[in-house]
Amino acid sequence: MALTVMKFGGSSVGTTERMGIVADKIIERKLAGDRIVVVVSAMGDTTDDLIDKAKEISDNPPAREMDMLLVTGEQISVALLAMAIHKRGHDAVSLTGWQAGIKTDGTHGKARILDIRPDRIQRELDQGRIVIVAGFQGITEDGEMTTLGRGGSDTTAVALAAALNADVCEIYTDVDGVYSTDPRIVRNARKLDAISYDEMLELANLGAAVLHPRAVEYAKQYKVNLVVRSSFTWKEGTHVREEAEMEQGIAVRGIAYDKNVARISLRGVPDVPGVLAKIFTALADVGIDVDIIVQSGVQNGKADFSFTVSLQDRPRAMDVISGIRSEVPYDEATYEENLVKVSIVGAGMVSNPGVAAKMFRTISELGVNIKMVSTSEIKVSCVIAAEPLQDVVRALHTAYGLDTSESAFVGGPQERR
Amino acid sequence: MALTVMKFGGSSVGTTERMGIVADKIIERKLAGDRIVVVVSAMGDTTDDLIDKAKEISDNPPAREMDMLLVTGEQISVALLAMAIHKRGHDAVSLTGWQAGIKTDGTHGKARILDIRPDRIQRELDQGRIVIVAGFQGITEDGEMTTLGRGGSDTTAVALAAALNADVCEIYTDVDGVYSTDPRIVRNARKLDAISYDEMLELANLGAAVLHPRAVEYAKQYKVNLVVRSSFTWKEGTHVREEAEMEQGIAVRGIAYDKNVARISLRGVPDVPGVLAKIFTALADVGIDVDIIVQSGVQNGKADFSFTVSLQDRPRAMDVISGIRSEVPYDEATYEENLVKVSIVGAGMVSNPGVAAKMFRTISELGVNIKMVSTSEIKVSCVIAAEPLQDVVRALHTAYGLDTSESAFVGGPQERR
Repeated sequence: MALTVMKFGGSSVGTTERMGIVADKIIERKLAGDRIVVVVSAMGDTTDDLIDKAKEISDNPPAREMDMLLVTGEQISVALLAMAIHKRGHDAVSLTGWQAGIKTDGTHGKARILDIRPDRIQRELDQGRIVIVAGFQGITEDGEMTTLGRGGSDTTAVALAAALNADVCEIYTDVDGVYSTDPRIVRNARKLDAISYDEMLELANLGAAVLHPRAVEYAKQYKVNLVVRSSFTWKEGTHVREEAEMEQGIAVRGIAYDKNVARISLRGVPDVPGVLAKIFTALADVGIDVDIIVQSGVQNGKADFSFTVSLQDRPRAMDVISGIRSEVPYDEATYEENLVKVSIVGAGMVSNPGVAAKMFRTISELGVNIKMVSTSEIKVSCVIAAEPLQDVVRALHTAYGLDTSESAFVGGPQERR
Repeated sequence: MALTVMKFGGSSVGTTERMGIVADKIIERKLAGDRIVVVVSAMGDTTDDLIDKAKEISDNPPAREMDMLLVTGEQISVALLAMAIHKRGHDAVSLTGWQAGIKTDGTHGKARILDIRPDRIQRELDQGRIVIVAGFQGITEDGEMTTLGRGGSDTTAVALAAALNADVCEIYTDVDGVYSTDPRIVRNARKLDAISYDEMLELANLGAAVLHPRAVEYAKQYKVNLVVRSSFTWKEGTHVREEAEMEQGIAVRGIAYDKNVARISLRGVPDVPGVLAKIFTALADVGIDVDIIVQSGVQNGKADFSFTVSLQDRPRAMDVISGIRSEVPYDEATYEENLVKVSIVGAGMVSNPGVAAKMFRTISELGVNIKMVSTSEIKVSCVIAAEPLQDVVRALHTAYGLDTSESAFVGGPQERR
């Protein structure tokens, strides 16, 4: 008997009416003979409403108390969903994170799952019940409640699937699956039938927010068979699996972009060992993530270099740079906003020479200047001005044969109906 | 160092602003040198909102899932109150019922506290923290969450006070304390400085809904020093304590009434053993509480008798009566609504002859007919027509010297300011 983990996000259970629709689908799967574990997020805006309440009281509430507050959102969801299933004549039991045996470290607000002891879940499954687990939460060894931070419910689902050795972990959301690029920009963007963990990771990190990178990493580590699909259309979604199982010969799986980019440039930095380390340690110390770093050639013992940070981190990053000027002297520090990062992602890139060259050529043919470049084994990213973003994404989508009409080139299995 | 348990009801913490006011008062007590354990109810209408959500999904949700849902209300309160205290620079920690070691039986929706293991609370107190416990909830031996039903948060507070051997358990609510009668009816009703557990029980059972009878029973059993006071005026409230400690010589402490009364009368019931038992067992089997029972004299081997039930139970009670007519034949069954029960309550009644006679005289002087009478050691109740209720309560209040202006007679300590 197959064991299926089904995860429903906040919009999937946004109203009590949606709860009913989701309950029907869960029962359908149960009647098909599966053992079912369901993971649910908080309903719609519940978490935001709780955060607002906390902010009314304190602009800096203790993380422990925030966790005490936020875990209630998922607890409400699981109880209501269990009621909806009971109402339809089937047996279900809701469990909090701690009742489900989800043990975490004590980092409130972004705890990591250390261990899952699924005895209770197994016991309930053995009694033929549908088990509904609150996502996003766990408990420490000391009995303190924790939340897993962003993407927490996805991670709960994947971790449970791993611990229970589930046959599949289905992530239900408000989109049909993973697309070759943002369908809002490219009308004939193609829903992917399958994608590798690594490709999904790159796409997720690049802002295709269908699945949280943490959950994908977890899935990769434990080889959890993931499916991303819609709880609104219920269409066949996108499978996320090991590369070895994927169809070969696809250089570029998708085009991603990130609008949340600012570039900081330092001119005339002494070219002595340890200078870069000092700068990036200072930024890391205040929690600023640096993405692309480009160093230009050295002249007269001085170097120029640039790096990107997120838009919101830009002012703090400039403060840090000013603050360490006595330690790390430089001639000038400037920044640029109104930039975007465009990336091509594909595991087949490594074995396909000329993939990056095609990207540069396509962009330059549009008369667009490439300001920074960064490459990895399965990704090439270019930082460009924000204005031509849509044209660039469309041109790349066509250049790599990703448009729906040219799907033969993509070579993947035809979409199942 | 005194240990104080402070309990705040839903209206006391109805808004985030109220949370702040309550936090200030808690800190004030803490700074006075006390060790403080706080018990909080769900904010304002939270519980009702959760019940409404459940009803949208199912008209008969499983009690276990209702408890999973409802415990979130108090969990939100304790987290927010802890934040409000932190915000003011003091250390507080919120605990769910299970974190606070409140063990109950498994009767979902109206669980009884079996045991409290306050190790965690003690540990937090030892570290100088204000401990904030979610009222109304506990956990079973099997790790299932339960709620304590009506008056649950009062009961949590009293049970914690007993387990921690607290010096006092202060119940904060939206009234100043316990009054000699309903101040909406008698303008010069008197706030009582002190009242015995038994008197409080009678008043609570009679609808003076300041403190739930369960909590009073618990307090009586463990001799918990209770105080009922207002979180809006913060005036000195009413002490509830053992009779022995009370001032003597007061025959009647207060006048209570109950509008929720219907009378059912059976005429011509065979006067054979076991008939009454059959009728009242049948009523109890469907959960109908019978209050006053009066049997008139027997004639020709047949008896007449009457009993009261709550207004909402009246139709079901008549159905039960009809249903058992084959077993318990009778000549006629009738009912009467539009009745009230007026009671005088006082522990000193036993040693004061003539107290009941004064009640009957006072009522009859108003030309009001007494339909039923019931007496206990500390209470006399009369069922009368609803219309003259206000006049009767006022007349009794005056007759027993309870009006504020005549407080000399009452003999209690003067109200402290």
